[in-house]
Amino acid sequence: MSPIYDRVALIGLGLIAGSMSHAMRRADLAGEIVGTARSPETRAIAEEIGLCDQIVATNAEAVEDADLIVLAVPVGAMGAVAAEIAPHLKPGATVTDVGSVKKAVVEAVAPHIPEGVHFIPAHPLAGTEHSGPRSGFAELFENRWCLIVPDENTDAQALDRLTCLWEAMGSNVETMDAEHHDLVLAVTSHTPHLIAYTMVGVADDLRRVTDSEVIKFSAAGFRDFTRIAASDPTMWRDVFLSNKEATLEILGRFTEELFALQRAIRTGDGDQLFDYFTRTRAIRRGIIEAGQDTDAPDFGRVAKKP
Amino acid sequence: MSPIYDRVALIGLGLIAGSMSHAMRRADLAGEIVGTARSPETRAIAEEIGLCDQIVATNAEAVEDADLIVLAVPVGAMGAVAAEIAPHLKPGATVTDVGSVKKAVVEAVAPHIPEGVHFIPAHPLAGTEHSGPRSGFAELFENRWCLIVPDENTDAQALDRLTCLWEAMGSNVETMDAEHHDLVLAVTSHTPHLIAYTMVGVADDLRRVTDSEVIKFSAAGFRDFTRIAASDPTMWRDVFLSNKEATLEILGRFTEELFALQRAIRTGDGDQLFDYFTRTRAIRRGIIEAGQDTDAPDFGRVAKKP
Repeated sequence: MSPIYDRVALIGLGLIAGSMSHAMRRADLAGEIVGTARSPETRAIAEEIGLCDQIVATNAEAVEDADLIVLAVPVGAMGAVAAEIAPHLKPGATVTDVGSVKKAVVEAVAPHIPEGVHFIPAHPLAGTEHSGPRSGFAELFENRWCLIVPDENTDAQALDRLTCLWEAMGSNVETMDAEHHDLVLAVTSHTPHLIAYTMVGVADDLRRVTDSEVIKFSAAGFRDFTRIAASDPTMWRDVFLSNKEATLEILGRFTEELFALQRAIRTGDGDQLFDYFTRTRAIRRGIIEAGQDTDAPDFGRVAKKP
Repeated sequence: MSPIYDRVALIGLGLIAGSMSHAMRRADLAGEIVGTARSPETRAIAEEIGLCDQIVATNAEAVEDADLIVLAVPVGAMGAVAAEIAPHLKPGATVTDVGSVKKAVVEAVAPHIPEGVHFIPAHPLAGTEHSGPRSGFAELFENRWCLIVPDENTDAQALDRLTCLWEAMGSNVETMDAEHHDLVLAVTSHTPHLIAYTMVGVADDLRRVTDSEVIKFSAAGFRDFTRIAASDPTMWRDVFLSNKEATLEILGRFTEELFALQRAIRTGDGDQLFDYFTRTRAIRRGIIEAGQDTDAPDFGRVAKKP
């Protein structure tokens, strides 16, 4: 395949940008990949492992002459980065991002984007609980969705090109508006994360059950929560602060339902519990059929001997 | 290895009993395995796949001359089964169970156990989201904990023998009292399950986000919740009804913490969120070091094309 973009600038060199670099190289999608990160340590590691063709020290240098600029920093840092790079952007270039929240990113970034430069927000629904420049791998986006959030003024050709890039990295692409994106993600990702963090925190706090008991007996259930709750703290802080409205809405519904089930437990209403648990089984079936997970029993995963 | 028990009776032929049968056969731990289940369909499947040496139609027949009787039915059914088998138990036999709750099982089963028969409750912390006679496999208990709940009158020799069986099936065995077991499990398993069920139910209810969107975009987070929420509804109904006290206590703490984080989101207190999320990361590390999960990034699991 001939490169989709001649020069790509990656700003922020964590799991997502790192994986993009691997995926773009694998399929020869970029003529040249330039990377930068705020921390000198991150830049040094990226240099050491050869993550990009070139590692530079400043955002301004990174975007110089770039055809695609990927903002891969925590959501709360996007506005400042946009302001910094704005004067250095090449006319005709496309700026995109990979943030987990879209409305707040559009509000923070769009005002800085100069006339003649395209801004097309995106969000690859992919990740692991690991972070940092060493955590990326080329397969991360394979068969994962990438949600692109254009608006009515988005240039069709620039949108096609960005869509091509994500598809060539293995993603399935869908477009939706920013507000709907944030609601969907509040349900499928943000609220579940907050809940997992909370449950792990409760376990840690409980005096009558020791941490070592919690850890030893983390059978199915809690163990999967800890996996979620091990995700990058900075990223998630920014997600909740910037998708406040939708997260609080879903949290409100969640506690309402939880109280209803709690009441069923207290009053011994077995039928209500049984009906509820039966209904949720069907959703799982749908996810397997949609190819987003396998049917292999996972709780029995073979672990190494302690 | 020479058999630990000459004749083992499995009452209920779901995931756990089925896996026990496979595991006992693999290591030649039982002279003969007799199985029974309430539903004729389950018995027919067990017969068809040769799950036990003998499948019988009634609990009374199953326990006849058995040295070990395993109650592997939902927690709510344990008492009735115990009453039914009591007159048919051989003196010196051991009755055990595999229920996820221990205090309620002891209360329901112990009064029926005749003098001269040992009752030693147990709980293997192992499972998958699948159920039924076809779902078992010999490796299910490998490197998983089995909690045995003796009391001050438990016969030491009978306890040793049951411990040997679980260890020979691959488990690590620990003993604790019934009340503490129920609290530990409320934290590490029962409450996480209820929360996962609730979150999946909320997603399903939400009118503005379609089920197909929820299913398609079930990135890390929600996807793991659906796996948990696909577990057997009857089993879980009984767990919550019979571990009411501890579950409600942990749920109370959970909602308290959740409200504190919700408030931090509403007021924009990023430091509180960051600190909380940083703390929960450490617990994950402990679980990996304890060998209960691997460090391999899981969210990026390669899924089949839709």
